[in-house]
Amino acid sequence: MTNEQVKGIIRNIPDFPQKGIQFKDITTALRNPEALKWMKDEIVSLYKDKGITQVIGLESRGFIIGPAVAMEIGAGFVPIRKPGKLPADVIEQSYAKEYGTDTIQIHKDALSKEDVVLLHDDLLATGGTMAAAIELVKKIGVKKIYVNCLIELDGLNGREIMDSDIEVTTLIHY
Amino acid sequence: MTNEQVKGIIRNIPDFPQKGIQFKDITTALRNPEALKWMKDEIVSLYKDKGITQVIGLESRGFIIGPAVAMEIGAGFVPIRKPGKLPADVIEQSYAKEYGTDTIQIHKDALSKEDVVLLHDDLLATGGTMAAAIELVKKIGVKKIYVNCLIELDGLNGREIMDSDIEVTTLIHY
Repeated sequence: MTNEQVKGIIRNIPDFPQKGIQFKDITTALRNPEALKWMKDEIVSLYKDKGITQVIGLESRGFIIGPAVAMEIGAGFVPIRKPGKLPADVIEQSYAKEYGTDTIQIHKDALSKEDVVLLHDDLLATGGTMAAAIELVKKIGVKKIYVNCLIELDGLNGREIMDSDIEVTTLIHY
Repeated sequence: MTNEQVKGIIRNIPDFPQKGIQFKDITTALRNPEALKWMKDEIVSLYKDKGITQVIGLESRGFIIGPAVAMEIGAGFVPIRKPGKLPADVIEQSYAKEYGTDTIQIHKDALSKEDVVLLHDDLLATGGTMAAAIELVKKIGVKKIYVNCLIELDGLNGREIMDSDIEVTTLIHY
């Protein structure tokens, strides 16, 4: 399978979740066994030699491929979640959205200073959520941060708001 | 690794999300590479010869191990989500909770009558959510339904509210 083939399986939903947005629906690729496996295999091939110790997935679509990547490269998996979902002590980061602000949290004891982490989500759009996730991980302090998303909306320049020293990879472009 | 060892890594959080509940926090097992892989391997060993075509995960913790199982047994992955999250046409099922009701949804075109499905979530407690997920899948109609959860709270008898012809497996008991 190629990324053009997987792109052909991903479904476009106009005006979701609001008017004017062309939502990229990955569920049609997830239910295809070859496309599902391709997404994991591509990320594994990019990061298997980087010494990643924890893959961090952003709620909820970052939970789908991230843990499978972690298993294959011998890392653990750490979730970043919305407020009220993580049961132990958390640290949090707020960030501006088009209307109002959003907050994400991580368990305080989820990472150590020796960790090399791969932050993973399904979509890189304006980059606001991922930039907040980077800040959150920096508050704990780790050895190195990598970033991967399945899909990138190139026109929104999301990777430009992230620190230039952080390597960002994406598999499928629109 | 054994299930007793993984049970020893899972963290107990008293009074979360409300007073009197002993919350089983699996994040301490997810971040342990051996425990993470063990959870997937155990489920794969139970279902690899059952002809499963789709693994269905319940939002959000059912998204973590379910897709990795799907990849290894050659199945696809289908999410069941809260209202407003799935972008295409859905069917839904409501169910009673301690206070009020909850609703879950699945994409109408996610499954076919020929599918053999494994419904997966992290926790089997009173069984209300899983019973609703079974009803949802039955509305579409599939060939056979299996159910797996990582953890079962034996005292709550959650498996008793599910149809007796559905085979339910769980890995860790409290």
